[in-house]
Amino acid sequence: MSTIWKSRYAERTLGVKSSAIRELLKVTQRPGMISFAGGLPAPDVFPVKRFDEACHTVLSERGGAALQYSSTEGHEPLRQMIADNMARYGILAKPENVLITAGSQQALDLIGKLLINRGDRVLVEAPTYLGALQAFDVYGAQYVSVPLDGGGMVTDQLEPSLRAGPKFMYVLPNFQNPSGVTLSEARRQQLILLADRHGIPIIEDDPYGQLRYEGEHIAPLVVLDRENLRRDNGFTLGNVIYLSTFSKTLAPGIRLAWIVAPEDVIKKLVQLKQGADLHTSTFSQYVTYEVARDGFLDQHVKLIRQVYRERRDVMLHALKEYFPAEVTWTHPQGGLFLWVTMPQGTDSQALFQAALAENVAFVPGDSFYANNGHEGGRHMRLNFSYSQPEQIREGVRRLSIAVKMQLHHNHAVV
Amino acid sequence: MSTIWKSRYAERTLGVKSSAIRELLKVTQRPGMISFAGGLPAPDVFPVKRFDEACHTVLSERGGAALQYSSTEGHEPLRQMIADNMARYGILAKPENVLITAGSQQALDLIGKLLINRGDRVLVEAPTYLGALQAFDVYGAQYVSVPLDGGGMVTDQLEPSLRAGPKFMYVLPNFQNPSGVTLSEARRQQLILLADRHGIPIIEDDPYGQLRYEGEHIAPLVVLDRENLRRDNGFTLGNVIYLSTFSKTLAPGIRLAWIVAPEDVIKKLVQLKQGADLHTSTFSQYVTYEVARDGFLDQHVKLIRQVYRERRDVMLHALKEYFPAEVTWTHPQGGLFLWVTMPQGTDSQALFQAALAENVAFVPGDSFYANNGHEGGRHMRLNFSYSQPEQIREGVRRLSIAVKMQLHHNHAVV
Repeated sequence: MSTIWKSRYAERTLGVKSSAIRELLKVTQRPGMISFAGGLPAPDVFPVKRFDEACHTVLSERGGAALQYSSTEGHEPLRQMIADNMARYGILAKPENVLITAGSQQALDLIGKLLINRGDRVLVEAPTYLGALQAFDVYGAQYVSVPLDGGGMVTDQLEPSLRAGPKFMYVLPNFQNPSGVTLSEARRQQLILLADRHGIPIIEDDPYGQLRYEGEHIAPLVVLDRENLRRDNGFTLGNVIYLSTFSKTLAPGIRLAWIVAPEDVIKKLVQLKQGADLHTSTFSQYVTYEVARDGFLDQHVKLIRQVYRERRDVMLHALKEYFPAEVTWTHPQGGLFLWVTMPQGTDSQALFQAALAENVAFVPGDSFYANNGHEGGRHMRLNFSYSQPEQIREGVRRLSIAVKMQLHHNHAVV
Repeated sequence: MSTIWKSRYAERTLGVKSSAIRELLKVTQRPGMISFAGGLPAPDVFPVKRFDEACHTVLSERGGAALQYSSTEGHEPLRQMIADNMARYGILAKPENVLITAGSQQALDLIGKLLINRGDRVLVEAPTYLGALQAFDVYGAQYVSVPLDGGGMVTDQLEPSLRAGPKFMYVLPNFQNPSGVTLSEARRQQLILLADRHGIPIIEDDPYGQLRYEGEHIAPLVVLDRENLRRDNGFTLGNVIYLSTFSKTLAPGIRLAWIVAPEDVIKKLVQLKQGADLHTSTFSQYVTYEVARDGFLDQHVKLIRQVYRERRDVMLHALKEYFPAEVTWTHPQGGLFLWVTMPQGTDSQALFQAALAENVAFVPGDSFYANNGHEGGRHMRLNFSYSQPEQIREGVRRLSIAVKMQLHHNHAVV
């Protein structure tokens, strides 16, 4: 009993719940379980040896500095390397435009802290990344949702939501979590123009951008925004804040990501980060710089693309082989996830229980919607990066048993 | 120009400023400068070789897990080790009572998020730790201050402030930052009784507790609270949340600290931490566990105590030798700082400028007061952990020149 604390919790905490996914992941760690639930990178492609060498180099050459307090903005050579890498994708940033964060989750938290007053609306995709909702909820965000289809956010349906006056839009254009879909180039252009016309800025979250397995690279919103602005010479320079991370290209356990923003926004975020954690681990930053340098990151990303493409393909083939014809799924061109749609009337929570009985797990779709309702009731998110190819085939086979039972049950009920 | 963002900043950010100290530390990095300004541990005592070995062990034996996502609560063996270590100081905690944070600064941020509604009062010492004010400010805290003397917070003056209805008290009982003073045992008992009587819980921040150079260990508030409760069988079990860190005993660059609290409070903090950064670096936690284990931490703390005690003594002797009789200072029994008090009428900001001209730096005392005014105008905080003994002597000599000039100026003005 610690009554004295409970009665003192701040208002903002009252609606905060533990992530349903994180609770669910505990169940999926049972032995024998094949889990498509987590969003975990494959540990077998972590560059463990390179990390070991980098730790030794950093500690033997610069141990005192690597273990000491450091600047809130981040390790200068790492910020420079990130700026250089992004320049190849047309994202023109100086190190002063880059803030190193403790994973993208911290970036989302700092952005929520910076921008959201209680009751402010945030425009999100439906479905969207659950962690962003968790980060924004605590600052009292309300949501306006815009639906997705196979070409990403349906921008034709965007304008009424923009008129609702959201504080900003939160968009995942590449291989979206959870749906795996990619925002088409035409829609990106439309999104930028509408954002500019209505004066609504954009948070572009791009954790998977480098993990493209097929098709051509599409320019990120932050680049299109800049090109658009050159045309109309508007005052909205920097209408897009861009987020990315090392979690999917190197390893998530080091908790290293970054925010790209106009310099005065970075300065304000730095003040908030000072109060939040002083700075990101100096040691993680030194080691990651040492790991990534001299072209290693590029070379490693090529390996990851190869491994994950194979796993995606195995999952797509297995779905086609085992799943009934009424069920459909997205064909992600990259990233970690695909999104399965069941016929109307399916209950993905019941399906989840049936799947657990078959020793296979996924995340039920309803977790990914900002506004309640049963929009997600007939969806499931499947991760294909974590499991080995043979596990993926077997997992999809097990899942198909649960799916068929569920469909049979639906028919029986009807 | 990024007008679109600035006009959208949340209310909570408007009063947030960059830490004066962090701005000031940039000046103090000039070559030739002797800085007593930072709160940095000595890098020459970082256990660099042990870290190198630990990285190799962790990566070669458990590389996949060490670089992967992990639980928000923290690495289980590390939580167990922390619980075991604290038990020797009478702090009885299970791993379930321990949350690993990204440095104590994150602990303070999470506590602010958990407890402070805009306008809530927080009771602090005057002076107090600047980073706590930064963490609490963003949640809209107002402050009630209670003065310190050589025996720590003057608990005889506490009751009127408790009647003002603070949400909680924030107290640094051991070798306080910035003053270096320690709360006496009698006052700790009085504090616990008053807190219990008025139903005001306590955040006990103890980053330096293990760095005692003389005198006997005094039981922390969290222990006295428990003993008190056994007596009166009250309902306020867990009236104290206790914070500590590896920053001062191993290294701050790894950003590892912890919160000890009742289990339901930990659960709520875990929910907030999920939204803030998912979890603390898995790799930092694995490596730190490997570094600290098998008694290494105890052995290393002994070394640190020896090195810092010598530096403290060198500073105390130099102050006595060089400083004029009108100036007084605290005699810290541990920690990293001492606190110098100049005669009435001294302006520590002017003194700071004069000191910079002599190539020596400190932090002017006015930075450490929650409520504005000139309370800190005649104080300076001196750090003795970072500089080598010969630098400390030379720095105090230089500082004495600036002090004498300033006193002379005072007399001239009078």
